[in-house]
Amino acid sequence: MCRWLAYSGSPVLLEDLLYKPENSLVVQSRHSRLGAETINGDGFGVGWYGALEEPGIYHSTEPAWNDRNLREISAHSAAGRVFAHIRASTGTDVQQANCHPFRHGRWLWMHNGSIAEFRAVKRDLMLAVAPALYPEIEGSTDSEVFFFLALTFGLEDDPPGAVARAVGLIEETGRRHGVEHPIQMTVATTDGATTWAFRYSSVGESRSLFHSTDISTLRHQYPDNPVLHGLSDDARLVVSEPLGDLRGAWREVPESTCLVVRGGREELREFAPTPALG
Amino acid sequence: MCRWLAYSGSPVLLEDLLYKPENSLVVQSRHSRLGAETINGDGFGVGWYGALEEPGIYHSTEPAWNDRNLREISAHSAAGRVFAHIRASTGTDVQQANCHPFRHGRWLWMHNGSIAEFRAVKRDLMLAVAPALYPEIEGSTDSEVFFFLALTFGLEDDPPGAVARAVGLIEETGRRHGVEHPIQMTVATTDGATTWAFRYSSVGESRSLFHSTDISTLRHQYPDNPVLHGLSDDARLVVSEPLGDLRGAWREVPESTCLVVRGGREELREFAPTPALG
Amino acid sequence: MCRWLAYSGSPVLLEDLLYKPENSLVVQSRHSRLGAETINGDGFGVGWYGALEEPGIYHSTEPAWNDRNLREISAHSAAGRVFAHIRASTGTDVQQANCHPFRHGRWLWMHNGSIAEFRAVKRDLMLAVAPALYPEIEGSTDSEVFFFLALTFGLEDDPPGAVARAVGLIEETGRRHGVEHPIQMTVATTDGATTWAFRYSSVGESRSLFHSTDISTLRHQYPDNPVLHGLSDDARLVVSEPLGDLRGAWREVPESTCLVVRGGREELREFAPTPALG
Amino acid sequence: MCRWLAYSGSPVLLEDLLYKPENSLVVQSRHSRLGAETINGDGFGVGWYGALEEPGIYHSTEPAWNDRNLREISAHSAAGRVFAHIRASTGTDVQQANCHPFRHGRWLWMHNGSIAEFRAVKRDLMLAVAPALYPEIEGSTDSEVFFFLALTFGLEDDPPGAVARAVGLIEETGRRHGVEHPIQMTVATTDGATTWAFRYSSVGESRSLFHSTDISTLRHQYPDNPVLHGLSDDARLVVSEPLGDLRGAWREVPESTCLVVRGGREELREFAPTPALG
Repeated sequence: MCRWLAYSGSPVLLEDLLYKPENSLVVQSRHSRLGAETINGDGFGVGWYGALEEPGIYHSTEPAWNDRNLREISAHSAAGRVFAHIRASTGTDVQQANCHPFRHGRWLWMHNGSIAEFRAVKRDLMLAVAPALYPEIEGSTDSEVFFFLALTFGLEDDPPGAVARAVGLIEETGRRHGVEHPIQMTVATTDGATTWAFRYSSVGESRSLFHSTDISTLRHQYPDNPVLHGLSDDARLVVSEPLGDLRGAWREVPESTCLVVRGGREELREFAPTPALG
Repeated sequence: MCRWLAYSGSPVLLEDLLYKPENSLVVQSRHSRLGAETINGDGFGVGWYGALEEPGIYHSTEPAWNDRNLREISAHSAAGRVFAHIRASTGTDVQQANCHPFRHGRWLWMHNGSIAEFRAVKRDLMLAVAPALYPEIEGSTDSEVFFFLALTFGLEDDPPGAVARAVGLIEETGRRHGVEHPIQMTVATTDGATTWAFRYSSVGESRSLFHSTDISTLRHQYPDNPVLHGLSDDARLVVSEPLGDLRGAWREVPESTCLVVRGGREELREFAPTPALG
Repeated sequence: MCRWLAYSGSPVLLEDLLYKPENSLVVQSRHSRLGAETINGDGFGVGWYGALEEPGIYHSTEPAWNDRNLREISAHSAAGRVFAHIRASTGTDVQQANCHPFRHGRWLWMHNGSIAEFRAVKRDLMLAVAPALYPEIEGSTDSEVFFFLALTFGLEDDPPGAVARAVGLIEETGRRHGVEHPIQMTVATTDGATTWAFRYSSVGESRSLFHSTDISTLRHQYPDNPVLHGLSDDARLVVSEPLGDLRGAWREVPESTCLVVRGGREELREFAPTPALG
Repeated sequence: MCRWLAYSGSPVLLEDLLYKPENSLVVQSRHSRLGAETINGDGFGVGWYGALEEPGIYHSTEPAWNDRNLREISAHSAAGRVFAHIRASTGTDVQQANCHPFRHGRWLWMHNGSIAEFRAVKRDLMLAVAPALYPEIEGSTDSEVFFFLALTFGLEDDPPGAVARAVGLIEETGRRHGVEHPIQMTVATTDGATTWAFRYSSVGESRSLFHSTDISTLRHQYPDNPVLHGLSDDARLVVSEPLGDLRGAWREVPESTCLVVRGGREELREFAPTPALG
């Protein structure tokens, strides 16, 4: 399994997101509190939006805690939209092409969880990917195939609808292969302006997911916290687990939910898979 | 493109194959004489047969000339059957899963050349791989798909026949996509007892391929050459390019040929693709 | 800190030492039971004696649990004397030159622990290394400098005496720099025939160290244990922590002790630093 | 040997320096025209000045032509002062700590060339490094020791004087060890505002070094060249070899010269070693 964060708001140095929080993603890479695994040392990745429409990506196979380049880049790069992910492989290779976030044009995608019995269902799922998108798949993970299924089903036009159909297909395919609980997921995806995050699992006990609360309210509660004063009012984080213990700062996303973050507004919608072969 | 060697005979230290010859594979990794590229620095691999039926594999993404572990292992490991390969990527990632030789059970496979317009034809070729074999594909190269097509067509029972059908399918698929010359190849494969090597290309101008000549004759010609005295009479090398300048030591394998090496005997057979959809 | 094992006895496959035990070194790399750190993911190394007098070395910067080459080599290489080490860096870089075991001629050396305030004392310690040995130092760790101090003080002639003098120098140097407890160590060194292991720390609370007990006795106690029947009577392991829970199989090495293993005999001697500037 | 470039001027994307020129540094990593080696595949590094006083550094052991992260970072990071270096090792390890540019506070340093017989003279040179600076040396190269000698001799106050004394010491030390031509060098160093570049060798036949000429003049000569119009008038490049074939764009730095670039002005001064033990 894995851990991730999605940030949007005023530009911040990457190190303020990745290193400085008490329970930062780099800390979690060695000692995750809520993860299925305590160690997430099988590579990591960062995606950030700069001057170009297409985001930049940094993928590394080293454990995040050892990567000196990540520390350097983080100290010198600021961005107003950042996806970051630390990986605990569920069996596929530790290689850059398997690091999240995955990218397609200006879209990013990252996933914590897995498609059950992936080896058994992979061929069927790959066949369902649009032939025009197929050659773009570079790695060997379930998460990347999931992304390309969502793209196939229209992620760029209707993200919640496309993810619902991709999950529907994954569940149908898994069940056809005798898998009881085909998918476990928290997912984040963005076009650089809006973030969509999903919490869902076939078994109904999904990995944890949280979003930060209103910054201006927090600022009133904690007038002495310097981090909160550096952020714009519309700054928001969506995370696998809280980055610290500030009371009132984090709200859990319920089971079977799609969270939409646009500027400083969050919207929670019920999420359910759509039968793919309807 | 790439460079490779296939050795069979009395057990030799890997370093005698990889480092000591004047134009060794490690030398070729920096300065190939006959390759399409002079540099083959995009990873390498070695497969060797030891006590087990299944061969061992060492895959590295470093340039061969820099790999200290390869030097150590080569100085301490002897084997009577060795495949070694240095890679010059034709576009796919430099990662361990893309290093040759590829393995399936006790079979090894390595390839110099490429499937033209691989991104365009990959999906069709992957579909032709037997579903039971499909999940074993770990990397993203044309060479590995080619191997699994050959396995699909019966490599383990009839290597020349299976390779002929795989090449037939690749050519038909390529031409259906408008590719004039779909394949360029020298290939070696072995079950640990016999080596089959193929030289073929759709355009009829294939990458170079050589095999060593009878050791006992050479030994008479060069009574002072210590290397020749350390090898058994049945020792044979098949290589992308000669490992040195010893006159009479190397014989070029003709175009459109399958070379079979079993013990000290070589057999040359004409090779032509078999229509796959016959 | 780190974890290590030193094996001597009848030739065994490396995988029988590194992977198969219940609490194997590869298991410990993720979840050490007794280590100062639970994770030892900052590289590892294996040294083994084969046909040559000089041992082979395999050093990797990947976490041991992810290294596919280690798995392959371990399944195909047997040796009668093996040193293996997993590293948890105390600050110096994760790079091959910092992986243990270190080698000088036919000698190997590995270390769990640290020289306190190493940055402050490094220059003085490096100055004490014999000028003829100085150029051989390749990495930046305290452990390698410690090895070269021991070599300077005659490791090849009198290992316990040389280590005692090296520790004496390290303690004097540290104290001159105001360090209260200059060294923490378990160390193993071998010339390929005898293994010397040391447990010592300036503070008197040293890292754990164990050795295996007589195999033939164990075999009587556990007549059904297949591992025990594959080993020669003189097989011995010295380890940072037991590789399993077999009662009676492990004996703790006391504080301030030098353990000498030669064939099937162990000898315990008191160990104390020798004043270097006596 | 190696290749490098030093840029100062209006902020440019790193990719405009590293990838886009016809004979860019990434092109040179495979096929250097003027280098002692045609391949510079033993790692590379980039240093750039951003919002902080201290520059950022990206060091990689991969060949530059294969590094996907470098491509990403280069497409998304702009800087007004950039040092970049591709390495061809003269014997020391390929590891991040051996990649240039080296950093000390806000200073960067990179070197093409070598200290002859470095293993023989290393200890003496290390002893000459100021004890307070000694612990900062992280790698094993001659180039880093050279940097710390220059720092010891006052690089931060008088760069040409400090380099002259460091070279003097290196020559004296080498000659004491019987080395005829102790140093071969082009060096660049900067504090983030001024660049000093040196061309010198004991033998009097130094590696090539060039600087770009006045941009506004070039712009008049080539009114249609888009690159020239994107740069400020004070933009300057100092390089191991020209990045392209534009006539009049490059001027060779003479033997035994120190080039000082500050804003849009270049100054050439004679350079000669200062006896260190005067």
